[in-house]
Amino acid sequence: MSYRAPVEDIVATLRHVAGLDRLIADGLAPDLEGGMTEAILDEAAKFAAERLAPLNVVGDKYGSTLKDGVVTTPPGWKEAYRAWAEAGWNALPAPEAYGGQGLPLLLQSACTEMWNSAAFAFALGPLLTVGAIEALHAHGSEELKETYLAKLVSGEWMGTMNLTEPQAGSDLNALRSKAERAGDGTYRITGQKIFITYGEHDMTENIVHLVLARLPDAPAGTRGISLFLVPKYLVNKDGSLGAHNDLRCSGIEHKLGIHASPTCSMAYGDEGGAIGWLIGEENRGLACMFTMMNNARLNVALQGVAIAERAYQQALAFAQERRQGTALDAPKGSAMSPIIVHPDIRRMLMDMRAKTQSARAISYLLAEALDRSHRETDEPKRKAAAERAAILTPVAKAYATDIGIDVASTGIQVHGGMGYVEETGAAQHLRDARIATIYEGTNGIQAIDLVLRKLPLSGGEAVKALIAEMRGVAAEVAAANTPGFGHTAARLTAAIDALERATQWMLATMGAKPAEVLAGATPYLKLFALAQGGTGLAKKALALRSEESGAAALATARFYAEHNVTEAPALELAVTEGAGAVEDADAVFAA
Amino acid sequence: MSYRAPVEDIVATLRHVAGLDRLIADGLAPDLEGGMTEAILDEAAKFAAERLAPLNVVGDKYGSTLKDGVVTTPPGWKEAYRAWAEAGWNALPAPEAYGGQGLPLLLQSACTEMWNSAAFAFALGPLLTVGAIEALHAHGSEELKETYLAKLVSGEWMGTMNLTEPQAGSDLNALRSKAERAGDGTYRITGQKIFITYGEHDMTENIVHLVLARLPDAPAGTRGISLFLVPKYLVNKDGSLGAHNDLRCSGIEHKLGIHASPTCSMAYGDEGGAIGWLIGEENRGLACMFTMMNNARLNVALQGVAIAERAYQQALAFAQERRQGTALDAPKGSAMSPIIVHPDIRRMLMDMRAKTQSARAISYLLAEALDRSHRETDEPKRKAAAERAAILTPVAKAYATDIGIDVASTGIQVHGGMGYVEETGAAQHLRDARIATIYEGTNGIQAIDLVLRKLPLSGGEAVKALIAEMRGVAAEVAAANTPGFGHTAARLTAAIDALERATQWMLATMGAKPAEVLAGATPYLKLFALAQGGTGLAKKALALRSEESGAAALATARFYAEHNVTEAPALELAVTEGAGAVEDADAVFAA
Repeated sequence: MSYRAPVEDIVATLRHVAGLDRLIADGLAPDLEGGMTEAILDEAAKFAAERLAPLNVVGDKYGSTLKDGVVTTPPGWKEAYRAWAEAGWNALPAPEAYGGQGLPLLLQSACTEMWNSAAFAFALGPLLTVGAIEALHAHGSEELKETYLAKLVSGEWMGTMNLTEPQAGSDLNALRSKAERAGDGTYRITGQKIFITYGEHDMTENIVHLVLARLPDAPAGTRGISLFLVPKYLVNKDGSLGAHNDLRCSGIEHKLGIHASPTCSMAYGDEGGAIGWLIGEENRGLACMFTMMNNARLNVALQGVAIAERAYQQALAFAQERRQGTALDAPKGSAMSPIIVHPDIRRMLMDMRAKTQSARAISYLLAEALDRSHRETDEPKRKAAAERAAILTPVAKAYATDIGIDVASTGIQVHGGMGYVEETGAAQHLRDARIATIYEGTNGIQAIDLVLRKLPLSGGEAVKALIAEMRGVAAEVAAANTPGFGHTAARLTAAIDALERATQWMLATMGAKPAEVLAGATPYLKLFALAQGGTGLAKKALALRSEESGAAALATARFYAEHNVTEAPALELAVTEGAGAVEDADAVFAA
Repeated sequence: MSYRAPVEDIVATLRHVAGLDRLIADGLAPDLEGGMTEAILDEAAKFAAERLAPLNVVGDKYGSTLKDGVVTTPPGWKEAYRAWAEAGWNALPAPEAYGGQGLPLLLQSACTEMWNSAAFAFALGPLLTVGAIEALHAHGSEELKETYLAKLVSGEWMGTMNLTEPQAGSDLNALRSKAERAGDGTYRITGQKIFITYGEHDMTENIVHLVLARLPDAPAGTRGISLFLVPKYLVNKDGSLGAHNDLRCSGIEHKLGIHASPTCSMAYGDEGGAIGWLIGEENRGLACMFTMMNNARLNVALQGVAIAERAYQQALAFAQERRQGTALDAPKGSAMSPIIVHPDIRRMLMDMRAKTQSARAISYLLAEALDRSHRETDEPKRKAAAERAAILTPVAKAYATDIGIDVASTGIQVHGGMGYVEETGAAQHLRDARIATIYEGTNGIQAIDLVLRKLPLSGGEAVKALIAEMRGVAAEVAAANTPGFGHTAARLTAAIDALERATQWMLATMGAKPAEVLAGATPYLKLFALAQGGTGLAKKALALRSEESGAAALATARFYAEHNVTEAPALELAVTEGAGAVEDADAVFAA
């Protein structure tokens, strides 16, 4: 099944929802003036469709394999990766001082979506490199940056994140990997890590591992964790590769999906200790890790959007081809119609489309906020953008990955029996999508992050500013007097009202009854996403009304408002009056 | 991962929700008087846990394989099947005249649930045999019944259903397989069938295929379809097996799940025509097929319940074992707690539990209605029960299989990263569950069946009777004055109000605007299920209030009402005001 990047909707979302034009007008994205955005996206779309999309099925079928410590990626993957890196795609958002192009995250996000639609398991690898680049750039010593950054930026080497251990998944307090000072400024790392994405592979000559470990005299808990750079091959002074470091891949997981992405168990220091270099300060590794993870959450959100888009395209193509039954208004004895004429099939396709585009809207809004948080020169503006990004990060990550699963599952349903047969390719999307709600912080953890850490920002003013913006969009829809909006204004207003009340409840309750706030965190996040996504789609529809593509944008915004946003009042109830039922679970689980 | 049948909840649901006690009191289930129900269920639970549950992982890993036309089932499956049949489990609901035990479907349903929880792909095979028995018993000639029924009832042979062809899936109008009269009372069958579950295997010596085909002079469309019995091996007069019939398995599908269940492409008549015998009358095959399919829909609903139950048990066990983080109220420096202490994990587990039990309630209610539709001696009562069953069939099939996917997916989420690793076994449940919304009529088709064919029964009185019963339960909850119900009464009442209005809208709209009715069919079905499932759980909680297990039943009913039933008003809006948005999809798909 082929993939064609939805450049039109991507550009419309960048410009009319995520405010790319304003970013340019404010002088914060000088590289994207003129038609640069479209030019870059067209090239990316071409590469994604022609070079990456064919890898997807191959990767699923062959997977990556481990033999004698060597991981082999599927046929064609190595070559595609090199072509992709040589074309400069890896360097897009990276700092210019190290060979990057320093383009806004907003543009990079559109490209990330495309790579992931084309071949999810492929695109996952470079995302880890991006995280490593960011952590190293922000916290690494000049020497480390000099040695590693340019190669990571060019894609000549790839990076990894080594956090998880068998007993330490979501809870990094339990981390046990050790680092000892060697006396020469380096450290010796020992320990077992699991679930290390692209921990070992044959795509690049060297792999730069970023590893969390504990010093002997470190305090207990997460305040005693440090971050180390541990290369697979040591690097000589002249930049050439030296000895193999004391680390190896001891196993790869047999997973539900993303078969081509090697998920490695890593053993550090079997022979005394892998040589590592400290990134940032001792015992301050968590802060470095957050740098590495925060954009990773945006990128995982984009994976949700991406897999949903691919599943939608495939289901749509099938529904336009497959003939079963006849349309309601077809004369007796008519030949079978494409199933897209049937209302329930259309409903499913519109649901897939609306969810995909709403998740795109939220994710791009987040990218824009992150760009402003880095690029605004005015401190209050930078802070406001950073808080906005902080709030949108868990919302985008959890919502986009949730709908990724949901849309991929509906895609199977549209295919009927063919959807269950692996050769069709629809099932792979569900299998691949299923990881994204788990990694980079489970969606439950995103919801907790949202309510406990993000809502209180600036005393609740940050979230109120976002809600006020949503109200502005709903008011515009109401004032637009466009029949095609149907009940959109009323549904959005109901959702924003529900969100506002639920937010007030959260802010008022978290001090005295944190358990109640936690019980409602997931429904609250979804409520937030419905209001944010619904206003996002409406904003796009308002902007495009007079253009040719306006009718489709309008229909999509309307569908989302009338079929999805409608759930908002139920979610409000789950938040504000649902905690008692969760507490009562004592009676169930004690039994 | 082991499975322990939830006998306590099964019995409570049978007695207090599905009215088993009343069925016995009415003299309609004499075999179940005294403690027979518990005695049979305890035996079934034992067999399911000890003999079948260990097959599940083995079946997934090895799958069934095809070589030179021979299908080999996974290690141990053949032996388990024989032990299961010899213990008499296949004969439970079958007619006593042919060696069956003639027990109520209600009891059989509880057992079917257990077999499917233990090993979904295993239990699927006998379900097809049950369908074949029912069709043959209802429509077959005495001679056919004499030759085949006893062997099917004992489980010595298995049966299949051959409906689908590449161009004819949901739409049987397009069926092309041919049957020619041989002149001796038999027929010669030629054609290709696909997606034939257990179409070929090594579990039994003979396989009895029920095949839909078209006579040369048949009218076009579904009124020209006949049903034939086509055995793999012809049967001699003395009951011994004769020549291999002209049919073969030409391929098996590589599927997302149920790997052990061979999904076969069948070729009939490569060498001139397979010998077949007519079941029922010529061109009336569709009626026979509906006999075969109607209970099949109940059985698929039970598969949804079953996989949800298994996924719930596995997630619960994991959450009680796995330690990450500490409880909110734990003193500083405490050791890590089992993750079940975290509110969001509890919320997920309660969601899984409540959905599973609500689907069980609806499915068992359906089984009871089917029993009454066969067993009531009073004609008006029989008709009322038949109409009730007709309505509940699509509701149970679609809802239970939808939640089967949903619960299995949440089960993965509870496991975090371990859930994505196949060895854990949580992912298999999602892969297996994914078929059930598709086969035996996709869930979209169930929804259409509900609104177009079932709501109008007795001029809408049948559905109104069901809604009136729901109101009775909601009133009892309101009157119970039990604090543990929380907001249950209010939520149920809101849902029943929404269902009543949506039903009126459906009945009023279907004549003039069928497209609008079809656009709302799926949300309508879900609305129906929420009200039916919510009142079912409440009914059980009311009955158990004074017993020891009452607190858990109450907490579950409350959770479902406060976290799931709350969606009802949104679904009403999707039904009554959502059709415009589906129609507007023209603007999207024409673009």
